[in-house]
Amino acid sequence: MNKRNIEVCFSPALFPEFRNPDAIAVITDILRASSAIVTAFENGVERIIPVGTLEEAMAYKEKGFMVAAERDGIVRDFADFGNSPFNFTRDMVSGKQIVYSTTNGTQAIHTASECYRVLIGAYLNFAALSEWLNKQDRDVIILCAGWKNKFNLEDSLYAGALSEQLLSGGNYGTICDSTLASIDLWQQAKGDLLNYIDKAAQRERLRKNKLDDVIDYCHSFDTTRMIPVLDGDHLKNL
Amino acid sequence: MNKRNIEVCFSPALFPEFRNPDAIAVITDILRASSAIVTAFENGVERIIPVGTLEEAMAYKEKGFMVAAERDGIVRDFADFGNSPFNFTRDMVSGKQIVYSTTNGTQAIHTASECYRVLIGAYLNFAALSEWLNKQDRDVIILCAGWKNKFNLEDSLYAGALSEQLLSGGNYGTICDSTLASIDLWQQAKGDLLNYIDKAAQRERLRKNKLDDVIDYCHSFDTTRMIPVLDGDHLKNL
Repeated sequence: MNKRNIEVCFSPALFPEFRNPDAIAVITDILRASSAIVTAFENGVERIIPVGTLEEAMAYKEKGFMVAAERDGIVRDFADFGNSPFNFTRDMVSGKQIVYSTTNGTQAIHTASECYRVLIGAYLNFAALSEWLNKQDRDVIILCAGWKNKFNLEDSLYAGALSEQLLSGGNYGTICDSTLASIDLWQQAKGDLLNYIDKAAQRERLRKNKLDDVIDYCHSFDTTRMIPVLDGDHLKNL
Repeated sequence: MNKRNIEVCFSPALFPEFRNPDAIAVITDILRASSAIVTAFENGVERIIPVGTLEEAMAYKEKGFMVAAERDGIVRDFADFGNSPFNFTRDMVSGKQIVYSTTNGTQAIHTASECYRVLIGAYLNFAALSEWLNKQDRDVIILCAGWKNKFNLEDSLYAGALSEQLLSGGNYGTICDSTLASIDLWQQAKGDLLNYIDKAAQRERLRKNKLDDVIDYCHSFDTTRMIPVLDGDHLKNL
């Protein structure tokens, strides 16, 4: 097959510039939504319904759904839990449907919904996702959830790691400057990833709110083979 | 004075997220608009009127103005010249008013127009601009013109170079992930900048159109002390 193209989009606000309905979109929000979603599937969640607004999340709550909802790192009063992957234990989520709304990650999923497939990417499912992508004959757009439509380091580093992995397989190529920049940042960071992440703004936000216990876990490779995929209004395992 | 904040915005489409009317905006479009504008002032242009659309540029042409206009690197038929800094010779521009419309750079100038000051930054005026900024008590936002609202390498590297220079002066700080990423990319590139730029998409676009004769020049430091600044509808020397 011909070489397929990899692009990296640094912000949901830029995604319209990457329009490609035939492409596979990989959404990443390393700290913490995509890491939490992948963890929930590893722990047996049946489906996750990502919603953009807190109003939608509340409406689901009133209908009896279990709801995870946070803004700026803080769990919302009406919600059953927030955005930490450690919330999504087997006891809490196995066999359940969960409605999920976060500051950046869940909106990013909707932003990409017209793509051929919308997948959730994290370090936790890195090998499973890259092996699957390597077998597809489609362009890939890695969409970084970022922070309130701004670039962030932790999602861009993941985009660099995944791009490097896909390019090394030989089925993919790139002419995209943001892909090249991501790979160069990843090259610089990967020798001591947690030390590099220490300067990221989100690291500092989580530290202030005493939510930085998840950073090590969210940068761990290959704890699961689960690949969440958007199917209509909800995520299921691929 | 308190430390002032540096932010880097990778695309005009993201600029609304950086809203700060009290800040100084530095617009950069290294290949080639900001390098050409700075060159024009060095060669005695009186003012440059940046316009977003080709229609506006044509209307000015009909009124008798000298017009520079290109899209995707190609000079437009109705225009007097295109976007190469080598067009803006003393013979051509000294004492003149020039209307200017390019694919990315001139729109970026308008995007930032509500900022306290809008300046044009290039390697060519690097020392003059950074010395002037170091004396101001204001936040700085470096706006990369990018390529059709996408991130590009050459503008981001310049943003990293300027950020590093300002941070080293001690008056500035940053908590912005895109500033940190720019600096890290600059660190990686600066030892052999032209070799690094060789992989940028715009380098390839210019090569295809045989317009890559300007790349070396556009990455040369300190050929001028001119700092173009927006004053109403036109740029003049600061």
